[in-house]
Amino acid sequence: MPDRRAILTSKRAAPVIAILTDFGYRDHYAGVMKGVIARIAPHVPIIDLTHGVAAQSIAAGAFLLARSWRYFPARTIFLAVVDPGVGSARAPIAIDTRAGARFVGPDNGLLSIAARQAGVRRAVELTSPRHRLSEVSSTFHGRDIFAPAAAWLARGAAIGALGSGLDRIVELGLPEPLVSAARIRGEVLYVDGFGNLITNISRKDLARLPNSFRKKPLSVKIKGSAAIRIHRAYGDVPTGGALAAFGGFDLLEIALRDANAAMRYHAEAGASVVLTTARA
Amino acid sequence: MPDRRAILTSKRAAPVIAILTDFGYRDHYAGVMKGVIARIAPHVPIIDLTHGVAAQSIAAGAFLLARSWRYFPARTIFLAVVDPGVGSARAPIAIDTRAGARFVGPDNGLLSIAARQAGVRRAVELTSPRHRLSEVSSTFHGRDIFAPAAAWLARGAAIGALGSGLDRIVELGLPEPLVSAARIRGEVLYVDGFGNLITNISRKDLARLPNSFRKKPLSVKIKGSAAIRIHRAYGDVPTGGALAAFGGFDLLEIALRDANAAMRYHAEAGASVVLTTARA
Amino acid sequence: MPDRRAILTSKRAAPVIAILTDFGYRDHYAGVMKGVIARIAPHVPIIDLTHGVAAQSIAAGAFLLARSWRYFPARTIFLAVVDPGVGSARAPIAIDTRAGARFVGPDNGLLSIAARQAGVRRAVELTSPRHRLSEVSSTFHGRDIFAPAAAWLARGAAIGALGSGLDRIVELGLPEPLVSAARIRGEVLYVDGFGNLITNISRKDLARLPNSFRKKPLSVKIKGSAAIRIHRAYGDVPTGGALAAFGGFDLLEIALRDANAAMRYHAEAGASVVLTTARA
Repeated sequence: MPDRRAILTSKRAAPVIAILTDFGYRDHYAGVMKGVIARIAPHVPIIDLTHGVAAQSIAAGAFLLARSWRYFPARTIFLAVVDPGVGSARAPIAIDTRAGARFVGPDNGLLSIAARQAGVRRAVELTSPRHRLSEVSSTFHGRDIFAPAAAWLARGAAIGALGSGLDRIVELGLPEPLVSAARIRGEVLYVDGFGNLITNISRKDLARLPNSFRKKPLSVKIKGSAAIRIHRAYGDVPTGGALAAFGGFDLLEIALRDANAAMRYHAEAGASVVLTTARA
Repeated sequence: MPDRRAILTSKRAAPVIAILTDFGYRDHYAGVMKGVIARIAPHVPIIDLTHGVAAQSIAAGAFLLARSWRYFPARTIFLAVVDPGVGSARAPIAIDTRAGARFVGPDNGLLSIAARQAGVRRAVELTSPRHRLSEVSSTFHGRDIFAPAAAWLARGAAIGALGSGLDRIVELGLPEPLVSAARIRGEVLYVDGFGNLITNISRKDLARLPNSFRKKPLSVKIKGSAAIRIHRAYGDVPTGGALAAFGGFDLLEIALRDANAAMRYHAEAGASVVLTTARA
Repeated sequence: MPDRRAILTSKRAAPVIAILTDFGYRDHYAGVMKGVIARIAPHVPIIDLTHGVAAQSIAAGAFLLARSWRYFPARTIFLAVVDPGVGSARAPIAIDTRAGARFVGPDNGLLSIAARQAGVRRAVELTSPRHRLSEVSSTFHGRDIFAPAAAWLARGAAIGALGSGLDRIVELGLPEPLVSAARIRGEVLYVDGFGNLITNISRKDLARLPNSFRKKPLSVKIKGSAAIRIHRAYGDVPTGGALAAFGGFDLLEIALRDANAAMRYHAEAGASVVLTTARA
């Protein structure tokens, strides 16, 4: 085991860069961004958060980033690129937060949910010519602007050196569930690769239901399906069985044990979900 | 940047963590596990073995792990998560082996073939609260239990510190081929991304055939196909041609040169394969 | 294992190994190559350039490598494996270049475009038994020959130690566009994961057009489509709109804003593209 001082030393110097994009895995785009980082900050560990965000889906990227950042080392630099407006007026930005995490990417809402959770301390527009590639294309700012900015932060550059301060960033709104006396009406936020349906209904929403209601067993319906009971774990139902459970980040998820709920219920992001008592 | 002594220190200690999951590449799941590792063991190199194991397929994961571990540095920690029973009674475990490799994952057979090959020295159930995240969900033990355990091992924790000893682990049986005087009857164990069909027939099985038989040219049939000759290399047949060859780990593989054998023969894991003399 | 001084030396130098293959993400193949590298060169950073090259497509791999290598640190070792002829007569090679980049892979044209751009200084056939695995299969030279050679280079081995010199390597020709007085006729070289169509028409080809022609607004047609105007950036057209632009590496790309051009135009690599004045 390295001694404590060694860990501390290298730690102060070298934060991790975690990358999230919608570039997929067929092409060289994500790899080239890592090459650019390695040129500028040779010893910084790079972690692929994912490059599988649905193409051009700012909402999906923002959702994944918001659910991931807390699990990384405190000073991690999140380099996020889902950028349908590349080359247009949207600004390239970097954000420093009170929790320590830094976020680099386009100012289109992608960074906003995670940054709000982490507490925005300072945001800048990435205008410094010294901290980008010498030639900037109009189609690949991930390579030309964002990767260099993240690498310079990892090398210890102050965020203020990267550009001029911004008063506000573009915020992305996620739909809020509707809580009434007899039910909660929400929707699917994200469909994961297993076909699990992650909704916008949280444990906190449950707490807003009348007391009488919360003591009953609860169930959920999706797009007019039969009632699906809320369980503790996937292992609580037989293979192929449907269940709902509060998963990571306390959001209600609908799943089939060892099978694909999105396919069974023909559900995508936006599909309507209603939580009621089991025998409503 | 760490000073020279720090590098040497952490260097001698730091084993690699290699990760195998069925989480795929769309979501943040594998990335979040890496974030958790980086928090606990900042300087440990992480290698993605693959996250593309067929969803919930314990057998496919066990097969890939068994064919991979020997190629890694001796003290590598394999963090493997194919875990359809997450949140149920199956135990989370870690295994130390005589070959040096360590394995961390669910006790559902996933680790068992590789661990048996490497020689199980000690197995523990991951019960230590200090070596998992402070909140453990019922749906994502990869993040909450397995990644922390692997990271603590990489930092030098003794396996015994992670939990209480286990007398036995769940073993996964792979189907054995049937060797008779005139033929070997086996089956497809794994279909890879090129459509190559990897069978359970090994060179050792050949050695059990009668001498007279082994001197003849051999061929193989899959699902009643025409006879496919056993060659030395893919380059030995023309483009599109079928061949069988003993590949890595001495298992017989059926392939098409520059084409997809699984599609041509409509074959999946479990498909029956018969090896006979070329003119049987 | 390297002695301490060797580690220090190579570390200061420690080049990156960047890997490009057509192995995909389902299997363990790319992961096993990384394991082999970690055994031989434990501290060398490994970057996945991509493992998503279309199966067996030497041209696609060569194209991606040629568009990527410049963005990596100068002494990067590119380990590239798209190898339909594995086990046949094609030689395994390593190339040193004047730009500093090293390339390791099969001598089938895969490395040739990038190596020519970087300036070939020396090429060797990988014949040294000391610098490959002790057992070499006939189906997986990525693991048995190429990964070890890349790792030895990263540890500081001289390229001459890996094998005997080669006078020439196999060159891959990319189709050249046809420039006439009234138009440029080219073709699609590569279709990326967004469905963007990257053509072989470069800014240099534009410069060869008559002066009178170049002052007019230009447009491009693909497979007899309506004329598509050449713009500066994706943001210049509305969602769903078509545009052409000179992207990274100055090649003309045809794209739809937030949509898939390959699907709209039913275009693949090889599809014909004609550039003329906007009202030709």
